[in-house]
Amino acid sequence: MKTVKEGEVRRREILVAARELFVNKGYDQTSINDILKIVDIAKGTFYYYFTSKEEVLEAIILDIVEEGARRAEKIVKDKSIPLVSRIMMAIMAQTPEFEGSDEIKEEIHKVENAKLEHLYVRAMLKRMTPILQEPVLEGIDQGIFHMDYPIECTESILLLGHMMFDCNVMEFKDEEFPRKIQAFLCNAERMLGTKEGELQEFMRMFGQLS
Amino acid sequence: MKTVKEGEVRRREILVAARELFVNKGYDQTSINDILKIVDIAKGTFYYYFTSKEEVLEAIILDIVEEGARRAEKIVKDKSIPLVSRIMMAIMAQTPEFEGSDEIKEEIHKVENAKLEHLYVRAMLKRMTPILQEPVLEGIDQGIFHMDYPIECTESILLLGHMMFDCNVMEFKDEEFPRKIQAFLCNAERMLGTKEGELQEFMRMFGQLS
Repeated sequence: MKTVKEGEVRRREILVAARELFVNKGYDQTSINDILKIVDIAKGTFYYYFTSKEEVLEAIILDIVEEGARRAEKIVKDKSIPLVSRIMMAIMAQTPEFEGSDEIKEEIHKVENAKLEHLYVRAMLKRMTPILQEPVLEGIDQGIFHMDYPIECTESILLLGHMMFDCNVMEFKDEEFPRKIQAFLCNAERMLGTKEGELQEFMRMFGQLS
Repeated sequence: MKTVKEGEVRRREILVAARELFVNKGYDQTSINDILKIVDIAKGTFYYYFTSKEEVLEAIILDIVEEGARRAEKIVKDKSIPLVSRIMMAIMAQTPEFEGSDEIKEEIHKVENAKLEHLYVRAMLKRMTPILQEPVLEGIDQGIFHMDYPIECTESILLLGHMMFDCNVMEFKDEEFPRKIQAFLCNAERMLGTKEGELQEFMRMFGQLS
């Protein structure tokens, strides 16, 4: 048992060191040797945990999803926040937002790394959809939302939000941004089956993030 | 002028030969030399048009989007088809559906090729959104649809349809498929602001494709 735990600690050390290097030096400029030096391990030890630098980045992305999911979970559990705000804030809280996140975010969203983007979306949907189910069902119970497919509705809103605003598939200009958010909120309202304008106040939240 | 035209013809010959090879031999198993042999050109001529095998595949994907867009355009222009059917049929007609398409489709959707998937989505949205604008606006005029953001609504439906059913981001089981289509049609109805059940008949169309 002790060995398993030590193994997990070692793996963590590699991830922490790599993340710092990726953020500060950049992913391309970081070599496996750079990581070895910081963690102070032999190459063989590294390859016991990971088969490549890319695999390290993949593990970091899954960590990022997990961190975002935990922030979202915390918000969802906070019943002092009004229901609709709870949902919208949870969706926005899961967006990668850690120190130096821009570097890794950029790495994820580079067209060459679309594979990582894929990995991110898949992991994000898997982790976030169940988290949002609770408040969505609560909203249905309270008669604020009306829908027959709560899981698919949640998936679709997460998916659309990500595709529209978090990755680089859409190529819209800065001045188009407010309209795209308006449209997104309007589509989310309709999918949730809530009354028109219910999500309008979240324009501001998006505005602050942009 | 003659030279430009000849250049385009040569480029086409390369694309046609490569596409056939990718479909029959598989992308990985096809070498640039295989392409040279069929088109009967020197390596230098190939590199005048393309920098790599991957660039050839990218051009083929853009061709696929263009072919799909033309099929969709034809349907959209056919006013003998009822409006809502015109839109749904156009959306479905743009899905790659040519001889041997499975091979290239698989290549696009392999996780390793997520970059190509990205390229496909971007090109598809750019080409398809304007095509669908006409019937969508017609539907608004006729009072069948009700929405403030027709462009964004069209983008969102195309994006969701693609993410849910055409690429391998969602990992649902076969038995979940009917429910996912139902939910997609329901969300599309709501975004279009049309009456509940309006798109229900398209369950069959999806059913046939699956």
